[in-house]
Amino acid sequence: MTTGTSTQIQLAARPTGWPTAADFSTAVIDLPDLAAGQVRVVNDFISVDPYMRGRMNDVKSYIPPFVLGETMGGGAVGRVVESAAESVAVGSLVVHQYGWRDVVQEDAAGFRVVPEIPNVPSSAYLGVLGMTALTAYVGLLEVARFKEGDTVFVSGAAGAVGSMVGQIARLKGAARVIGSAGTDEKVALLTEKYGFDAAFNYKTGDLATQLAEAAPEGIDVYFDNVGGDHLSAALGAFKDGGRAALCGAISQMNRTDGPTGVQNMVNIVTRGLTLTGFTVGNYLAHFPAFTEQMGAWFAAGDIVFDETVVDGIENSVDAFLGMLRGENTGKMVVKTSVLESTTAAS
Amino acid sequence: MTTGTSTQIQLAARPTGWPTAADFSTAVIDLPDLAAGQVRVVNDFISVDPYMRGRMNDVKSYIPPFVLGETMGGGAVGRVVESAAESVAVGSLVVHQYGWRDVVQEDAAGFRVVPEIPNVPSSAYLGVLGMTALTAYVGLLEVARFKEGDTVFVSGAAGAVGSMVGQIARLKGAARVIGSAGTDEKVALLTEKYGFDAAFNYKTGDLATQLAEAAPEGIDVYFDNVGGDHLSAALGAFKDGGRAALCGAISQMNRTDGPTGVQNMVNIVTRGLTLTGFTVGNYLAHFPAFTEQMGAWFAAGDIVFDETVVDGIENSVDAFLGMLRGENTGKMVVKTSVLESTTAAS
Repeated sequence: MTTGTSTQIQLAARPTGWPTAADFSTAVIDLPDLAAGQVRVVNDFISVDPYMRGRMNDVKSYIPPFVLGETMGGGAVGRVVESAAESVAVGSLVVHQYGWRDVVQEDAAGFRVVPEIPNVPSSAYLGVLGMTALTAYVGLLEVARFKEGDTVFVSGAAGAVGSMVGQIARLKGAARVIGSAGTDEKVALLTEKYGFDAAFNYKTGDLATQLAEAAPEGIDVYFDNVGGDHLSAALGAFKDGGRAALCGAISQMNRTDGPTGVQNMVNIVTRGLTLTGFTVGNYLAHFPAFTEQMGAWFAAGDIVFDETVVDGIENSVDAFLGMLRGENTGKMVVKTSVLESTTAAS
Repeated sequence: MTTGTSTQIQLAARPTGWPTAADFSTAVIDLPDLAAGQVRVVNDFISVDPYMRGRMNDVKSYIPPFVLGETMGGGAVGRVVESAAESVAVGSLVVHQYGWRDVVQEDAAGFRVVPEIPNVPSSAYLGVLGMTALTAYVGLLEVARFKEGDTVFVSGAAGAVGSMVGQIARLKGAARVIGSAGTDEKVALLTEKYGFDAAFNYKTGDLATQLAEAAPEGIDVYFDNVGGDHLSAALGAFKDGGRAALCGAISQMNRTDGPTGVQNMVNIVTRGLTLTGFTVGNYLAHFPAFTEQMGAWFAAGDIVFDETVVDGIENSVDAFLGMLRGENTGKMVVKTSVLESTTAAS
C-alpha cells in the first residue's frame, strides 16, 4: 500500500480583473488507502489554459464555474503508481482532468491511458497530441470550414493553439498564413519556425494597417484567440464569404471596465461573413481522426512545437498568470515532479 | 408608337449621415422609339429599402455603389404598355430592378413577368411575394437554420422583413416568437396581427431587460435587422448553440460618429454561437421553393401583411427617409401612378 500526500492548489476567492496569489490557497491532503476500482497517479505535468480564467467567474458558461475551496480542475498527465482497477496497470501513462495537484487518486474511469512515444515528453499529451492541438484542428477545419487555397489569419499565433493552427493550415494547403503576436521574438518564431508566411507585432503598430499589409487581398479565415481589437481588425480584412472560428478572447478576460466593443459588425452583413464560437468539448467526436492525422504529421516531422515549462506545483499560479500575460511560447505547462519522493510500500 | 417621358430620381451627391433632398435630383427624360427586343413599362410601385442607404456610399460592398448622376436602382413592379419583344406581351405585369422612375424602357430580358392574383395588389410582388419576403424566408430557414421548437427574436419586427420572419417562424413551429419595434402601435400590431407571442418597445425601456422578460429561458435564433445595441442584447440572451442571421443594421446606417461597438462578443465563444451575415442576392436559388411555400400560405390566409404607400414619384426621397426613420409599418412602397396619363398611340 502506498502512503503519501497530495499537494493541491485551490480557488480561494473569485478574482476581479487580474487574479492574484491571494485568490488561491495550497492544501496538503493525506491520501487514504486506495478503494476498489481506484488508481493513484503521480502527475508529470499539469496544464494552464486561458479558459480557466473564465471558470473562475461565477457566471453561466459552457462548463460550470470552479467551486470555491475546491482544487482547480484541468488537464494533466501522469503515471499510475498504484492500481486497484484491473483496467489500468501500474506504470501506465494517463491523461486526466483532475488538475492542479501533484498526486491524484480517483476511480480508474477518470483516466485515459495513452501510448508512450520515444523522444516525446509526456507533456505533449497536453499540447500537440492533446486538447490544445485538437482545439486548433477542429476550429480550423470544422468550425471555420477551412479549404485549400484560403488565406488564414491567426491571432495569438505563438501560443499553444495558434502555433498549431498556422501549421495545420499550411499542411492543408493554405494560400497564405498570417499571424500576430505580442513580442518581436514571437513574431520571428512564427515565420522562421512555424512556417507562417507573414507575421506582425500587434503591440508596436496599428493592427488593421499591419493586417492589410500582410494580407493585401484580404483573408478568408480568421482564427480568433484574442478578441476585441483583433476581431474588429479581422472584420475589416475579410473577403466576401469569410469565416471566423472564435476560440477565445484572452484580451478581454481580465478587464473590469467592460468588454471592448467590436466595430465593423456591419461587414458581417455586407460581406456575408460567418462567425462561429466553439469550445473543444463539443467536438470530441473528432478526436480519433485528429489523433491519426496529427500522429502522421508528427511522425513525419511536419509539426514543430514549443513548450514553456514552469517547475513545481507551488508555481502553478505564477505559470497561469504568465500564460495570461503572454509570457509563454507554445504550450505552458507546470512540471510537478514528485515521483522520486513518493514511496511505494506494498 | 408610344410617346412619352420618364420622370426619374437620380443620386446627385453622396450623403454624409442622414440623406437630404439635396442629395437627389429629378430628371425628365424623353423616351425614344422602342428598339427591337425592348419593352416599355409603366410602373405601379417602386420599392424603397434599407440596403439602398449602403449603396449611396462609395465603399466596397456586395453590390456596387449607386453611380452619381444616374437613376436610383431598385425593385419595382409595373405593366407593359408597349413591346418590341416576342417574349413579353403588352399588358403583362412585370417586376424589375430599374428603380426610381415612373416609366422604364429597356431590353425585355431585364423584366420578369409575374402572375396576377385576384384581390392582391401588384405591390405584393415587392414585399410578401417578392425579395422582401424571400429575405425573411432564407434568412430564417437557411442562414439561421431555424428548427421547430426554437425561440426566435426578431428586431425591427414590424418592418417589411421582420413581420414576415415572425410569421414564417410561427408557421414553421417556433416555440416562441418575440419582436421589438419602435412605437407602441407597432408593438400592438406584432402580437395582435402578426401572431408574435411577445413584443416590446425598444425606445421606452432597457433592451436587455425587456428581452430577458420576453424570453426568460433565452433565445435560439435572432434575426437582426437593426444591429448595434440590439445585437448586443441578443448576444446576452442566447442559449448555447444559438444562431443569428444578420440581415441589416438600420441603426448604424446614418451614423457619422462610427459604429456602435457590440458588447458580449465573448458569449459567441462561451455559448458556441454562430452569427452569419447574408444578402438575399446570394440565395436566389431558393426563389422557386419560396414562391411555392409562400403562395400556399398566402392562399390559405396564413400570412398577413401591411404596406405603407406613399403617393407620387416626386415623394420617393421622403418615402425612403421615412422608411429609414421607421415611419412605415410593413413594406414601404411608392405609388407611381402615371398610367392614365401615358398615351398609347400606335
